[in-house]
Formats: sequence, C-alpha cells, structure tokens
Amino acid sequence: MSDPREVRRTDFRVLRELPTRWADVDVYGHVNNVVHYSFFDTAVNGWLIEATGTDIRSLPAIGLVAETSCRYLGELQFPTTVTAGLALEHLGTSSVIYRLALFDDGDGPAAVGRFVHVYVDRSTRRPVRVPESIRTAVQQL
Amino acid sequence: MSDPREVRRTDFRVLRELPTRWADVDVYGHVNNVVHYSFFDTAVNGWLIEATGTDIRSLPAIGLVAETSCRYLGELQFPTTVTAGLALEHLGTSSVIYRLALFDDGDGPAAVGRFVHVYVDRSTRRPVRVPESIRTAVQQL
Amino acid sequence: MSDPREVRRTDFRVLRELPTRWADVDVYGHVNNVVHYSFFDTAVNGWLIEATGTDIRSLPAIGLVAETSCRYLGELQFPTTVTAGLALEHLGTSSVIYRLALFDDGDGPAAVGRFVHVYVDRSTRRPVRVPESIRTAVQQL
Amino acid sequence: MSDPREVRRTDFRVLRELPTRWADVDVYGHVNNVVHYSFFDTAVNGWLIEATGTDIRSLPAIGLVAETSCRYLGELQFPTTVTAGLALEHLGTSSVIYRLALFDDGDGPAAVGRFVHVYVDRSTRRPVRVPESIRTAVQQL
Repeated sequence: MSDPREVRRTDFRVLRELPTRWADVDVYGHVNNVVHYSFFDTAVNGWLIEATGTDIRSLPAIGLVAETSCRYLGELQFPTTVTAGLALEHLGTSSVIYRLALFDDGDGPAAVGRFVHVYVDRSTRRPVRVPESIRTAVQQL
Repeated sequence: MSDPREVRRTDFRVLRELPTRWADVDVYGHVNNVVHYSFFDTAVNGWLIEATGTDIRSLPAIGLVAETSCRYLGELQFPTTVTAGLALEHLGTSSVIYRLALFDDGDGPAAVGRFVHVYVDRSTRRPVRVPESIRTAVQQL
Repeated sequence: MSDPREVRRTDFRVLRELPTRWADVDVYGHVNNVVHYSFFDTAVNGWLIEATGTDIRSLPAIGLVAETSCRYLGELQFPTTVTAGLALEHLGTSSVIYRLALFDDGDGPAAVGRFVHVYVDRSTRRPVRVPESIRTAVQQL
Repeated sequence: MSDPREVRRTDFRVLRELPTRWADVDVYGHVNNVVHYSFFDTAVNGWLIEATGTDIRSLPAIGLVAETSCRYLGELQFPTTVTAGLALEHLGTSSVIYRLALFDDGDGPAAVGRFVHVYVDRSTRRPVRVPESIRTAVQQL
C-alpha cells in the first residue's frame, strides 16, 4: 500500500468543509481522536443526502456502519476548518466502502481513514442490496 | 433563592452514578461545560426508563427539552464517577421541571441545574398531556 | 423580559456559521439539546480568538464557564448550517456575560441562550480581572 | 485471523464498565459508531491512570493516538453498561498497541477494536521511549 502521507486533496472528487468545535479539543490541546470519526460520519452522510437529493434516513434500507479505521498523521486544532476528502473504495452488493482523508493546513493529510456502510432493512436489520439512489451517487465518486 | 453551594446529596430522592470519559475533558484539564448537560439528559431519561419500566422513546408522547440551565460551582475530572441528584421541581399539564445537581468528592455540588421537558405528540410535535406512566414516576421524586 | 421568539439576526453584531454533524442528532431525529451548548462554546471562544488575535488559552487568565442556559424554540436538523448570534449582556470586573441565539431557516431563533465566563488565574483558579485584550474585544459586541 | 465474533470476556485480563449516555444514541436508535472510540479511549486511559497510580497527562512523555479501528458486530443501546475488554497486542520501543472489545448482553462482542498509542515528548512531540511506569503496567495485560 502506498504511503498515506502522500495522499492529496486532488485524489478526491468530493471535498467537504468541517469546522472544529471548542469541545473537540482534549487535554493535549488538539482535536481528540474520537472526533475524526465524527468528521468521517458527517462527510459521508452529509454528501449522500445532498448527492441523492433524498433523506437517506427515511429509505427502507439504511446504512449501518460495519467497520471504520483512522491513521492520525498530524494534529488538528481549534479553530480551523478541516477539509474532508471522500472517495469510493468499493461498491458491493450490500456494502459501500469509502476512503477518507482530513486536511488542515499543508499539502499532506492530518488523517486518513476508511468507512464501511452495510445496508440493512430498517426493521429486520438484515442485509439488503444498496439502494439504487445510493448506488448512482457513489459511482460519481 | 437559597445558596446552590448548600445543596447536598440528601436533598435528592434519586441519585445516579455517571462516570466521566477521557474525551469529556477539554484544554483546561477539566470536564467541558457542555458535558454537564449530557449528565442531566442521561440522568433524567435513564431514570424515567427504569422508573416507568417503559421505553419512553416509543410512547405516543415524547418529552422534548424546552429549557435547561447549569451553574458550575467546581471542576469535574477524569477519571471520576459523578453522582447526579434528581428532584421534581414542578409537574404541569404538559411539562415536567427537574432540579439536578452533580456531585464529585466533597459535600457540596460541582454543579446545579434545571431541565424542562415538554411532552408533545410524536408526529405533530404539538404539546400534549404528560403520559400517565411518567406522571406516576415523577411523583415519586 | 421580551419574547425570545422575537429575537432576530439583526439583534447581533457578530454572527457565526456552525454546521451540524450527523452524530449531533438523537433518537428523536433532531439535534440533541446538549449540542446547543457546544455551539455557544464554539461561537464565544472562536470569536474571542479571532477578535483578540490571541490564543486565549495561553493567556495567564482563562475564562471558565460559570453559568449557561438555553431555551429551545425550534428543532435543528442535520444537515444544516446554524447561524449563532453573539452579543454582550454585561462586562464586569472578572466576568463577561454573553447573549446568544441560534438561527436555522426562518426569521425566529431555534434557541436563545446565555453564557457566563469568569476569568481566573490559570494556576490558582482564583478570579482575576478580565484581560485587557478580551475587554477591548467584547466592547465591540 | 480468527473470527472476531468468537472473542469472549475471558480473553481479557482487564474489563472496565462504561455506561452509555442518552446523547450517544443517533437517529437509528443505537449508539453512534463514533462513541465506540470514546469507550476505547476511556478504557485505555482510565486503566493506565489506575494501573500506574500516576496522572499520565503530567508525564514528560504523553501517548498520542496514531491509529484506531473498530469492527461493529452488534448494536449498543441506551441505557446499558458496556463492558470493555482490554489486552496488549504489542509493546514496542515508543508504541503500545491494545486490542479491545465491547460487550453488552450475550457472549459475543458488540464491537472489537485496536488502539495504538505512540509516546512523544510533551513539548517537541517527537517519539520517545514508552515511560517505565507504563511499560510495567501494560505488561500486566
């Protein structure tokens, strides 16, 4: 696998702006590691809502998070506006895998991550096919 | 009004244990002011679920928060387990007002607060009468 | 006191944009009541850092939160960008009291609040005079 | 690698109790994926503070998070008390890698994860040797 420090904004078709909050910062004076996942979550779902033109929360199939990961390469501060890059790693029958990166100042990323949605029936919570509106959207990535 | 520093654990019929989390602590090395409201929210709703024996989220009337306030009298740390005291200030037709306090070490409170639920119809979000199961529960406070 | 529903964006000299996050939304499908205080905290401290041109966290006197309150007048959603209005209610010897409001769509506020900073010595945590750089800044409000 | 669904409480020397909060739950009625990392963070740091008998935040070397990951195998609810299992995967010169699992009801885990601390000098933020007090503690895992 290539060096995550080489990831650039230009590697992503979709970039989203996410300002940090005062309470994101922990005792070490930087954005706490947990918050990066809130940026991932917000970037993916916010983009899906816009790109599909649909409130994805009311579809019969909902995307539950099956796996996430993050490598922290630099510190994020308050105040700043983080740029999240969003790319498609894989579109499966019932899952979508996203690659993400968070950029602050500088060319290299402050963090890179991975985010896996598995689509399930809202009521039974059993896996189902990724809805067409979401398939169409993620193929633009 | 009496001095909030004089509030004691014995002023509350219900006491709930709420441990702090690492990410609760902000750059000043204490639990961030926002987190106190998560303790209030958790104490009220957690107690209501236990005391009514009902998942209050699935009732036709749900309690939306109409007003909250907090006075911060001392700092909370990580790790520690906070004790939240819960009392009834007022039971109205469609609203319930709780008094809360958060205790750590020591006799006096680290914070005192107020939390107002207004019950609304789940769909229309128009005010309705506080459900009987909740009336019965809060009268024990 | 006047009706908080009559508060308008034009009542505030400072307005700040604060996007919601996916995880801000709770089981009732709206931004949880706790998050409003993170908006207040972020608006006040973010503005102070910009207006003073100083990292306020490294001053010898730091602003600890002594009291906060919020009235919830409407629901906030994800995704949306909230506008926070910030005004000075009172500048005392060691305290600053802010009035805040959160606006989404529509003219009226989704929430109005109050936020009290007391300045203390970073080490002793005893009250001290509000630093000059902060006095100068808040008088612009 | 073995099936994460086969992980059991008995695979961990250290188990920590972590209650969920009302605001942890998102629009899908379960604990949001971000919160699991707050459980990991709290379990690791809370245990380190107890096991070393030291406030690890005031050591000259601090543990910054370099990498985290989580696989979500079941849903967590409010209210419940999650049991976090903590084990040592690897102790390096400047890094510690933990394996974690979160258990609710049932034998199998609701989530399994990995958490990597890299120790750095508090001021320069350059990697340094894991402090002796922390080496001694993690070897008990």
